[in-house]
Amino acid sequence: MLIVQKFGGTSVGDLDRIQNVANRVQKTVNEGHQVVVVVSAMSGETNKLIAYAEHFSATPSVAEVDMLLSSGERVTASLLSIALNEMGLPSIAMTGRQAGIVTTSRHTKARIENIDPSSMQKAINAGKIVVVAGFQGVNEEGMVTTLGRGGSDLSAVAIAGALKADLCEIYTDVDGIYTTDPRIEPKAKKLERISYEEMLELASLGAKVLQNRSVEMAKKLNVNLVTRSSFSEAEGTLITKEENIMEQPVVSGVALDRNQARVSLVGVTDRPGIAAEIFNALALEEINVDVILQTVAHDGTTNIDFTVPTNELENAKNIVKSFVEKGEIKSSDYNESIAKVSIVGVGMKSHAGVAAKAFSAMAAENINIRMISTSEIKVSMVIEDKYSELAVRALHSAFELDK
Amino acid sequence: MLIVQKFGGTSVGDLDRIQNVANRVQKTVNEGHQVVVVVSAMSGETNKLIAYAEHFSATPSVAEVDMLLSSGERVTASLLSIALNEMGLPSIAMTGRQAGIVTTSRHTKARIENIDPSSMQKAINAGKIVVVAGFQGVNEEGMVTTLGRGGSDLSAVAIAGALKADLCEIYTDVDGIYTTDPRIEPKAKKLERISYEEMLELASLGAKVLQNRSVEMAKKLNVNLVTRSSFSEAEGTLITKEENIMEQPVVSGVALDRNQARVSLVGVTDRPGIAAEIFNALALEEINVDVILQTVAHDGTTNIDFTVPTNELENAKNIVKSFVEKGEIKSSDYNESIAKVSIVGVGMKSHAGVAAKAFSAMAAENINIRMISTSEIKVSMVIEDKYSELAVRALHSAFELDK
Repeated sequence: MLIVQKFGGTSVGDLDRIQNVANRVQKTVNEGHQVVVVVSAMSGETNKLIAYAEHFSATPSVAEVDMLLSSGERVTASLLSIALNEMGLPSIAMTGRQAGIVTTSRHTKARIENIDPSSMQKAINAGKIVVVAGFQGVNEEGMVTTLGRGGSDLSAVAIAGALKADLCEIYTDVDGIYTTDPRIEPKAKKLERISYEEMLELASLGAKVLQNRSVEMAKKLNVNLVTRSSFSEAEGTLITKEENIMEQPVVSGVALDRNQARVSLVGVTDRPGIAAEIFNALALEEINVDVILQTVAHDGTTNIDFTVPTNELENAKNIVKSFVEKGEIKSSDYNESIAKVSIVGVGMKSHAGVAAKAFSAMAAENINIRMISTSEIKVSMVIEDKYSELAVRALHSAFELDK
Repeated sequence: MLIVQKFGGTSVGDLDRIQNVANRVQKTVNEGHQVVVVVSAMSGETNKLIAYAEHFSATPSVAEVDMLLSSGERVTASLLSIALNEMGLPSIAMTGRQAGIVTTSRHTKARIENIDPSSMQKAINAGKIVVVAGFQGVNEEGMVTTLGRGGSDLSAVAIAGALKADLCEIYTDVDGIYTTDPRIEPKAKKLERISYEEMLELASLGAKVLQNRSVEMAKKLNVNLVTRSSFSEAEGTLITKEENIMEQPVVSGVALDRNQARVSLVGVTDRPGIAAEIFNALALEEINVDVILQTVAHDGTTNIDFTVPTNELENAKNIVKSFVEKGEIKSSDYNESIAKVSIVGVGMKSHAGVAAKAFSAMAAENINIRMISTSEIKVSMVIEDKYSELAVRALHSAFELDK
């Protein structure tokens, strides 16, 4: 098999850990596989460089920031390749440019546009391990760019796609995706397989492991993604196409999102298009509205409730205020003490009664559901924040995820 | 004027010093000049990276070492450019590759083959300060290479040549070239101007400032080189073509080289070509033979004396030994307690009696001259090491270099 292995900052956090990564790669090679390694900067290094830049400017010029930050991954890639060569494993270190990664020109937040895998392929064909500096590429003018947060994962997934690799392993300090957060429910079980779609909905469960951007790219490029730990031999979780998952459980996991705030608009003018106006204004400010609930009161006026991420609440308040001032909304109310708990599973599509079962589990614990939103593979419930852990455990148990 | 300014590791040793460099550049820009800046890695950074590499291997793979080390200069270049932009001075950071520097493929010791200055020129024409990461380039396959010791100076000189810059300023912690080592002769004076040829002969006086490689390149590309301090406003020393120096002093400086050892070959076989054989054998081992003296003894046998750098003495001894074993040389003798003191000056060409005056100065101090070697612009004398300082002061005073 051709395997792309990506090691994050913690996995290459010091020289001994880089040696540990080299040993891992050796093991994979000894099992008969071809390996391409993608590495992040040593943990702390990127933050140090950012602090350096901010010493000179609160808003450092972005092209320079990219050249600066890209050096961190190059150091790790060089060192790992030196270690592999020393172990008698022929290896070559490549920068993003050398690996053929071409991106958009948007410095510090570039998107991968194209990968020319010929240099990597040539080295692989020559029996070499290719070690690529993650997180970076060049734009069409040959300027160094970086890919933003989670960028090395994106490098790895895109490289796996371009090389048509059999597997893309993302190594972190977590050994996979769990049915729910084990800090809340110790009975949480590691998932063996999960579909791209479920993973996207369970984002909070993978938050420390994978960004949605990477899962989306894996889905698009049809890359089999594995998240596993660089500190243990445990098998990780395979994120793959729905078809590749034999037994699809009704519910795969329970996710909790405590960073939501509820916005209540009371007495919204009864005029066609007013809701669209409000949500357009929010969208223009890039505020991510999640669950939306519209109700008509006895007096004929409309109330609209919705949730936004807590850190976007202030912006949302300003926009609501402008509608209140124009007399389009009578009054508004805000509540940050809410949480969103969700059950996710592709099996839901073919199973009736999933939502009902979830509501019953909540009722049995006397937890009031304030808002509900559903999709084909998800049921989300907005509840009072203080019931968060209780709700997670109740759902985890109701759907027998601990079995 | 278009000025290339190069700042070494000490000059960019920490963030405050990088800011100090930015202020220097600003001053030059405010004087109406166009500026290209070439920077080294922050002092200590390159050694840290080498130690990292050596953690994994005593002989780390050289392509990887180049990628590793080149990151140091990139960090400095990015930070300086960020600082300049923040000060309202439009600036762009460039890697060696982006600056168009193409080198040979010999990793860690590459030579600059060609510079395509078009990207730099375009940025300069757009009113930008170009900040180039020194010490590095790419070979024809696009792999990162580094230029070895003194590499950033070479980058600066080569860039100045390619851009036909009016001046190439090398900033260090020393404010120029002195008539002799001020630690030996406190009356030493800073030279205002000196020719390339004199500088090459006075290498030991510039040892802490400039490598001969850079002076040779400056000579070849006809680059006006200035060495000056980044920590003071003092004018430096201009190293330029002989024609650009109006008043050519008879003697420009007194150099002292204490790292020489004397090799004495007694009773060398009287056979044509034997001397050539011996010196060829030394050349094959890359031993730099300096002063050579051949004498014929009363009994008709030949003695040959020569000097070699102290650190090459052991190698030289082995070669001599092989000739002794073959019976080509009767015996050998070695002396490490010698020193070579030299007076250098282009004015010597047109002045008679310079050597005589030097010998008189030595005689007046009762210093025995063991060997003599002269060139058009230099008189070197090998003496007992214990007279080193005395000899330097005597010559410095005899040629009125303190005036």
